[in-house]
Amino acid sequence: MDLAKKALDQHEEWCGKLETVAKSKVSTREDLAIAYTPGVAEPCKVIAQDKEASYKYTMKANTVAVISDGSAVLGLGNIGAHAAMPVMEGKCVLFKEFGGVNAVPICLDTQDTEELIKTITYLAPCYGGINLEDISAPRCFEIEQRLKETLDIPVFHDDQHGTAIVVLAGIINGLRITKKKKEDCKIVVNGAGSAGIAITKLLLKYGFKHATLCDKLGIINSEYPDLNWMQKDMLKVTNLENKSGSLADALVGADIFVGVSAPNIVTAEMVKSMNEDSILFAMANPVPEIMPDLARAAGARVVGTGRSDFPNQVNNVIAFPGIFKGALEGRAKAITDEMKLAAAVALANLVSDDELNEDFIMPEAFDPRVADVVSAAVKEHI
Amino acid sequence: MDLAKKALDQHEEWCGKLETVAKSKVSTREDLAIAYTPGVAEPCKVIAQDKEASYKYTMKANTVAVISDGSAVLGLGNIGAHAAMPVMEGKCVLFKEFGGVNAVPICLDTQDTEELIKTITYLAPCYGGINLEDISAPRCFEIEQRLKETLDIPVFHDDQHGTAIVVLAGIINGLRITKKKKEDCKIVVNGAGSAGIAITKLLLKYGFKHATLCDKLGIINSEYPDLNWMQKDMLKVTNLENKSGSLADALVGADIFVGVSAPNIVTAEMVKSMNEDSILFAMANPVPEIMPDLARAAGARVVGTGRSDFPNQVNNVIAFPGIFKGALEGRAKAITDEMKLAAAVALANLVSDDELNEDFIMPEAFDPRVADVVSAAVKEHI
Repeated sequence: MDLAKKALDQHEEWCGKLETVAKSKVSTREDLAIAYTPGVAEPCKVIAQDKEASYKYTMKANTVAVISDGSAVLGLGNIGAHAAMPVMEGKCVLFKEFGGVNAVPICLDTQDTEELIKTITYLAPCYGGINLEDISAPRCFEIEQRLKETLDIPVFHDDQHGTAIVVLAGIINGLRITKKKKEDCKIVVNGAGSAGIAITKLLLKYGFKHATLCDKLGIINSEYPDLNWMQKDMLKVTNLENKSGSLADALVGADIFVGVSAPNIVTAEMVKSMNEDSILFAMANPVPEIMPDLARAAGARVVGTGRSDFPNQVNNVIAFPGIFKGALEGRAKAITDEMKLAAAVALANLVSDDELNEDFIMPEAFDPRVADVVSAAVKEHI
Repeated sequence: MDLAKKALDQHEEWCGKLETVAKSKVSTREDLAIAYTPGVAEPCKVIAQDKEASYKYTMKANTVAVISDGSAVLGLGNIGAHAAMPVMEGKCVLFKEFGGVNAVPICLDTQDTEELIKTITYLAPCYGGINLEDISAPRCFEIEQRLKETLDIPVFHDDQHGTAIVVLAGIINGLRITKKKKEDCKIVVNGAGSAGIAITKLLLKYGFKHATLCDKLGIINSEYPDLNWMQKDMLKVTNLENKSGSLADALVGADIFVGVSAPNIVTAEMVKSMNEDSILFAMANPVPEIMPDLARAAGARVVGTGRSDFPNQVNNVIAFPGIFKGALEGRAKAITDEMKLAAAVALANLVSDDELNEDFIMPEAFDPRVADVVSAAVKEHI
């Protein structure tokens, strides 16, 4: 049976990948009197006096809301709130299974930025953190930024920051192999949506100096048509020479390529035009920007993709469960750049010198140390 | 240790009475590929074509949202969204434990009627039903009514309808004991908030003909000051002679008293002024409108309260889990009056002729038949 058929059948059998389970069993009248009325009034009264007590008496302490408006789901695009549910449920499963964090899927039936911001603000009391998911750019930037400004719980758009953390971890280890210095590397990021922009920002924050963003029409510069406000903002820190040209032009003499774009748009010739010991993350899914064997044959030293059937999978699941585990345990009010950088370094360091090689730069998703290491890194920066 | 202390300590130990648990375990790469990417895209694509498929592939099929704005929580009043969480979590526990229904607590940080309606509308795609809880009157009436008009999933304000169903069940059995006919009985309902009004409506729907609503200033009639729109509406079907006077006046010659009001406001003299074989539901919590022993001594035949330490407890937990279990299993688009009446009759019938007596008119909360019987009654009327 092929995977698609199997996945569909299995989803029908599950009929929901999550369930809610009572920690407080009610088998006697006294149980009922404690978990519900009249006993439940006691924690209510304490919280009414001091909202912080929510963390002591309610599931807010260890629960994340996974919120989407269904506007940019996987590679499927704008499929709406109903159709986004299986993905959000899946994300919640990963939060629990990998990070021990309770998570509830919330798919909102509006794509109006202001309505989304208001709705998420109204929802915030119940949750210890908010994981935004699959919201289209550039709306996702404003929604996240505005919520971060007003809410006192962590708000984290995983498509941006989870991806950026894992890519940075991979690149850090790529540099361990190629022995290049981050200050000297030229980076080309292709795909100026939420992931591409967040990756670029985090790489610069980490200490890379030379980044160029490309999108469908090539190098993004001041003449590029229809840039959104965030893409314009990025011109202040990328392509400082205001170069123009195609992706092929951008890649000449580059050290690192990060693709969050479209299948098969990088050719062997382009790879050959890059500097020696190049690092490529070709993360278009399911078909990467260039197939790993082709890239390696053309001279790339380290190649990662989004796929689990090739080496060096870039998989957010090694980041977000630990990020929120740490943020919740440490009662962080926000997830900062310092936490993201620390998480990336911690992930990179999980691969020992002995293990590290061209085909093994990322810790495995099922490595039981992953969430704890990331969580510890986050907590150190609260 | 007293109950209050015990309840507070226990809530701290739980730190959340609910958890989310994955039905889809992920221990291998293949698990991950089925529950998450790329396999998860398959149910997404099907739902994008047909929203109804949500019921086949997602937790919408068997999940209720328990939604409050914290404006009228228990007897604590307007304590806000954060402080309402322990109650909503408790309610979710009861949904799962008694009805096998998954439930998630949602406390919204707004008390604006329009904002609540919009927010709940945006949330609807994820859930198979919405249980409104602890929202103050008369806002609760409008919020429920407007949502029922626009949403295609059941919306049920339990403070109204759950209470009404259980009170009606008790009264049906009270009449089995007193051998009175519903058409002849005079009913006085004291407390014209959400519960009092819903009880009155359901009793009239069941076939009672003579109901009088009272509130703090006595009998509600056309001269009563500051009536809200729903209370005015109720004057079309209650107090048809437009009587005025105190609660004591209302009770003279009455057969049934239902109190959802305040402690100790019914005296022995008032009970004595009622007709023979009177039925009293004195549900103020924790101290009833009249203590059962006093009421019985003054001539009442059947007395119920909201308390578990007296006979005949009126406890919504025998209604709402089965109501939603039936509505979800039968994919009901709404919970109708017919379903509520059928649920009340089914609950009443669970008490056999042999069991029925003045001190046993209600099925027990822990009677394992309860949710199934209510669920079956609901499903018969879809």
